[in-house]
Amino acid sequence: METASYINFTFILFIVLFITAYYWYPQDKLDFQGCSESTPCCTSKNRFSSNSGLASETQIHKLKVGTPQHPLDPLTVREINKVRTILSSYEPFLSSFPPIHFLSLDEPDKQRILGWNQGDPLPPRKALVLALLNGQSNVLTVDLELSRVTSHEIKLGAGYPMVSMDDISAAIKVAASHQELNQSAIARGVPLSELSCISPSPGWYGPDEEGRRVIKVQCFSSQDTVNFYMRPLEGLTITVDLDEKEVVKFIDKGRGIPVPKATNTDYRYTAQEKPPEMEPLNPISIEQPKGPSFSIENGHIVKWANWVFHLKADQRAGMIISKAMVRDSETGVLRSVMYKGFASELFVPYMDPDENWYFKTYMDAGEFGLGATAMSLVPLNDCPRHSHYIDGIFVSSDGKPYVQPNMICVFERYAGDIGWRHSEVPVNGFEIRESRAKVTLVARMAASVGNYDYIFDWEFQTDGLIRIKVSLSGMLMVKGTTYRNVYQIPKQEEMSIPLVSENVIGVVHDHFITYHLDMDIDDTNNTLVKVHLVKEETLPGESPRKSYIKAKRETVKTEEDARIKLKLYDPSEFHVTNPSKRSRLGNPAGYKIVPGGNAASLLDHLDPPQKRSAFTNNQIWVTPYNRTEQWAGGLLVYQSRGDDTIAVWSQRNRNIENKDIVLWYTLGFHHVPCQEDFPVMPVVSSSFDLKPVNFFESSPILRAAPFLEKDLPVCRPADGRF
Amino acid sequence: METASYINFTFILFIVLFITAYYWYPQDKLDFQGCSESTPCCTSKNRFSSNSGLASETQIHKLKVGTPQHPLDPLTVREINKVRTILSSYEPFLSSFPPIHFLSLDEPDKQRILGWNQGDPLPPRKALVLALLNGQSNVLTVDLELSRVTSHEIKLGAGYPMVSMDDISAAIKVAASHQELNQSAIARGVPLSELSCISPSPGWYGPDEEGRRVIKVQCFSSQDTVNFYMRPLEGLTITVDLDEKEVVKFIDKGRGIPVPKATNTDYRYTAQEKPPEMEPLNPISIEQPKGPSFSIENGHIVKWANWVFHLKADQRAGMIISKAMVRDSETGVLRSVMYKGFASELFVPYMDPDENWYFKTYMDAGEFGLGATAMSLVPLNDCPRHSHYIDGIFVSSDGKPYVQPNMICVFERYAGDIGWRHSEVPVNGFEIRESRAKVTLVARMAASVGNYDYIFDWEFQTDGLIRIKVSLSGMLMVKGTTYRNVYQIPKQEEMSIPLVSENVIGVVHDHFITYHLDMDIDDTNNTLVKVHLVKEETLPGESPRKSYIKAKRETVKTEEDARIKLKLYDPSEFHVTNPSKRSRLGNPAGYKIVPGGNAASLLDHLDPPQKRSAFTNNQIWVTPYNRTEQWAGGLLVYQSRGDDTIAVWSQRNRNIENKDIVLWYTLGFHHVPCQEDFPVMPVVSSSFDLKPVNFFESSPILRAAPFLEKDLPVCRPADGRF
Repeated sequence: METASYINFTFILFIVLFITAYYWYPQDKLDFQGCSESTPCCTSKNRFSSNSGLASETQIHKLKVGTPQHPLDPLTVREINKVRTILSSYEPFLSSFPPIHFLSLDEPDKQRILGWNQGDPLPPRKALVLALLNGQSNVLTVDLELSRVTSHEIKLGAGYPMVSMDDISAAIKVAASHQELNQSAIARGVPLSELSCISPSPGWYGPDEEGRRVIKVQCFSSQDTVNFYMRPLEGLTITVDLDEKEVVKFIDKGRGIPVPKATNTDYRYTAQEKPPEMEPLNPISIEQPKGPSFSIENGHIVKWANWVFHLKADQRAGMIISKAMVRDSETGVLRSVMYKGFASELFVPYMDPDENWYFKTYMDAGEFGLGATAMSLVPLNDCPRHSHYIDGIFVSSDGKPYVQPNMICVFERYAGDIGWRHSEVPVNGFEIRESRAKVTLVARMAASVGNYDYIFDWEFQTDGLIRIKVSLSGMLMVKGTTYRNVYQIPKQEEMSIPLVSENVIGVVHDHFITYHLDMDIDDTNNTLVKVHLVKEETLPGESPRKSYIKAKRETVKTEEDARIKLKLYDPSEFHVTNPSKRSRLGNPAGYKIVPGGNAASLLDHLDPPQKRSAFTNNQIWVTPYNRTEQWAGGLLVYQSRGDDTIAVWSQRNRNIENKDIVLWYTLGFHHVPCQEDFPVMPVVSSSFDLKPVNFFESSPILRAAPFLEKDLPVCRPADGRF
Repeated sequence: METASYINFTFILFIVLFITAYYWYPQDKLDFQGCSESTPCCTSKNRFSSNSGLASETQIHKLKVGTPQHPLDPLTVREINKVRTILSSYEPFLSSFPPIHFLSLDEPDKQRILGWNQGDPLPPRKALVLALLNGQSNVLTVDLELSRVTSHEIKLGAGYPMVSMDDISAAIKVAASHQELNQSAIARGVPLSELSCISPSPGWYGPDEEGRRVIKVQCFSSQDTVNFYMRPLEGLTITVDLDEKEVVKFIDKGRGIPVPKATNTDYRYTAQEKPPEMEPLNPISIEQPKGPSFSIENGHIVKWANWVFHLKADQRAGMIISKAMVRDSETGVLRSVMYKGFASELFVPYMDPDENWYFKTYMDAGEFGLGATAMSLVPLNDCPRHSHYIDGIFVSSDGKPYVQPNMICVFERYAGDIGWRHSEVPVNGFEIRESRAKVTLVARMAASVGNYDYIFDWEFQTDGLIRIKVSLSGMLMVKGTTYRNVYQIPKQEEMSIPLVSENVIGVVHDHFITYHLDMDIDDTNNTLVKVHLVKEETLPGESPRKSYIKAKRETVKTEEDARIKLKLYDPSEFHVTNPSKRSRLGNPAGYKIVPGGNAASLLDHLDPPQKRSAFTNNQIWVTPYNRTEQWAGGLLVYQSRGDDTIAVWSQRNRNIENKDIVLWYTLGFHHVPCQEDFPVMPVVSSSFDLKPVNFFESSPILRAAPFLEKDLPVCRPADGRF
């Protein structure tokens, strides 16, 4: 991450006012008239067909102020305002209303949700609130029915909640008024009006910065480019106390390193002077003239093909899928697959021990929020034409609601791929040419955590498979250097310093996205089964073969046995099964997790960032369901010390056999930058699958219809000319 | 594989006649009138726009009989006929024309091709012929200009060329007239008219079957289903001598095992009685009303966006990409990336030492041919609407040409994905919402090697990346069993025997696809560089961090050092670089191979199938270019003993630094079947990428244009109703 901030002083003030003004909706006088085309703060830009079964814009408008329809629906604008009102008159907050760092639905107990049916009254609506008071993290529950705070805990251990936009703005303001920074900028030839600063989190590295909330500030030149990330003032780091609002440390060691030039850094289409050196492409589009086949009921219940699930935006996790159910291909009954799935943490360690770099070991979800940084998606480019957009309703540090517009898109995807096929070669008597096109449903969001953009996809297939994909784009976090070419670098042959432009090093780094996957295969009680692929040697005379692979099922009984590192030469499949739900053949119903390309963290387990992100010590963990164990790195991640991670929880070595279990999977990327990553990075993706194994009695897509020419749309070019 | 064959006797005869009749084009009286809609043997079914720059059907027709336009173009119908004429009057063949097992262009020397420019006269056209004479493999070169055989080698070692359709038909005919087979079928209650047989290759397991060409025959019941694969006559294997045309061994041990029922096995859409248990989907299509943006010149040169490459069908490899070049994003100059890329071998070992199963260790490319088994693609379902189809022109065992129609499709793919993006969070002063949709170009074919369907994709991206993907579908190879449910299986808790239906076991197996990737980054001489990611520990006091990753470049000098097993906890990047071609910064131009999900062969290295497929001992190999080292398992793979594999070649431990090198990559799958694989398998895919690293000076897609609403097509439903 690296939430970016701009340091034109009057501008900062404007921004703060802007957030306050735009995103404050008085409870009873909700008025969207203030929104304009360029600041679409109000409504999802959806393209509704009248017969598509989707909610109209009016309905969506109502949802924001109206009543929730499902116990998992996020807090509405009205509910958030009510929470604020309750907190305002809460005795401990009377003297001073504390900054709110998280305010979201406190989900009802799982059993309550599972017992709830459409039409039942909603369980009491509650809010979970993280607030800072006197430098301490306060965790409160507010009951909206009782109109009062029902629990209030002051966390005495390490760790703070996510920083707020106000924190960032304030930190940058503090740094910017620091005279030494100004002197250094001027000495480096950067006009103060062109200084753009970002606010990396400090991590945690022992006692130096303990006991107070601090943040780092680093600055760049935005002269002649919007891509200030490529123009670092290297070696300059200001540590700011977020609560005292003062500079606590100032490092300025890189004055000899030139600020890299702006040339060829601007990535905006409007800033390009030369045309691309490739043939232009004719228009291409995924077309659905009868509209998409999904519906989104009450703004959150997505229904498509054989799937039903609840989808919502979350300020921290970005996007949460709940109660994913798939229709049985034989009985037509909806069956539970997953109670809850979301990106629980995102760990991004940079690989440079330099005093201006060592701390860059971000935990973006818990430090900055994947939802908080998920901007409006760009129609037609981020999502295809017939997408449906969903807003997030989040809370700013003053406790007021604001809208993150068009934050999630939902669309049907047809990529020219095949669902299943078979042909027979002509020597047999069967003239077989059977093939089915694959159409899927995607829910997508993109978090712009400073320089990096993370695109999160949940893709649902009609064969019961769920593909979870992360795509990375955006800008590199680069380091200024005196080197203009590799020949100037000592030990040139080793080239361990990736030079991506003149005076610009792309620092090596990793990304790890850890998913919380609360699988409920048919019911809550599930078991992890390892299907271990073992080489067996034949006995002399047994067979002309010397060896073969045997698939051995092993029930995993404890958390310890469920700490899994993937091994190419000692492979297993990992099934979450329901031992009580058997197919007609007696196979337990299950879903397996199917890893794709992956990378592991190589850091020392005692290295502070690895301790804090110890959830990346394995690719797979399984824990028994525990309401409080949602966040892989802990509830309070900012400056945390690693005492509330999966690695700690799972040390209890709880029994996980035939229990309500949660599967955790970490998707990793190593990134050694290259010149193609400058000035903007083409998307790199990886994914993993949740795939049914003996969940269905037989192939659930056997009876799917083929595409026929007669059903496909009739299209003409926009300009009418073919 | 397991090329399937049908055993109605009169039908077999018909088939043989059919192949002869339909696929024989007299050299000077080429007449396509005999072709009908149901047997589209003649022309690609393309949808050409008049202004799309694509060849017309007439042009394609001409190509088949006409003159080749490029030195790599496959032999035309006329050329194949000429080769046959030359061979017919070749002295050693005068007494009896030998069965032809492969007849294809003998590609000119690489240097010749590299020196050739459009408009130059073609180098002499030659054919490489594999023929069987007196039980020996004969390798001949026929020079079409000199009109004579210019080389003729009799291979005395082990291994035979691919079996032909005639071989398969003959083997099945021999087996079918074997009285014991008939008795066994009748005893099992299978009417002889409903017996369908397949012909698994025998592998090689020592002296028993050496010195003669043999094949196995196994039979199924096709009563009441086209999906005979699900109805094995278990335990029944007939070994047939392909040249003597006699049964050499008959095993019948499974009479107590019932033939599984036909119920719910038929996968054809027309055979489905119940509708699917899911909401029907509205029509969806990738639309391009101005036509696709690629052109295919002279039937083989594909030009799209910044890519140009030569594409052709091959009877053994299926599809060959040659001379792939990408346009430099700065200079506009076409630059070489890969001289030749294709699936060199496909190894499919089944994991059962049983005497009716142990030999199932297919090497499908060399034993049966990926092109020979690639049937016509199904428009709209195998490939999207605006695809261009390409035929294969292959040779049957009588030396005559035949057309494999619509065998490859080429299409532009828009999957709703993102090429690159960046947004800025609202606290900075930049209102950034930049995003670019990703459009790619795909060349696809699907080989139906008996029960299994392999979909091969080569996907070209505008950012310079090439994605090579294999998708698996089709039918399982199953084993009959007396078990009707898992409770009847001993050691039930281990469940190492996957029961996928009543009396049907899905036998565990692997798939390994080994690609030959002759990378030529800017020129032939390249070097493999390992970018090793190594954990470095900091010195006491050096940094608050204890560890970080360093990327260390290591030049790989010999074949031995280029035998690479992928390791999650000891990772490297693998770059093929051109040390003589440096970027402006001095970085060597390169492409890296980026593995995705993968699986390794766990078989004992001394196990005969693993010895024959020793190319799967590592995921990556690099060898110096050698004209004769094209096929990972050797030129003559059928019954081979593993003496002509990459593993053998690379034992010479040749120097590979700054040489013309070939990269070999193996993509693997373990498959533990489950009920969802019955009666047809939903597609499972995996892929790897070839990705530019410091090949371009900067991001090659920076200047790509965004999608705009005004450019997109205007569509209406086919029935006109929205």
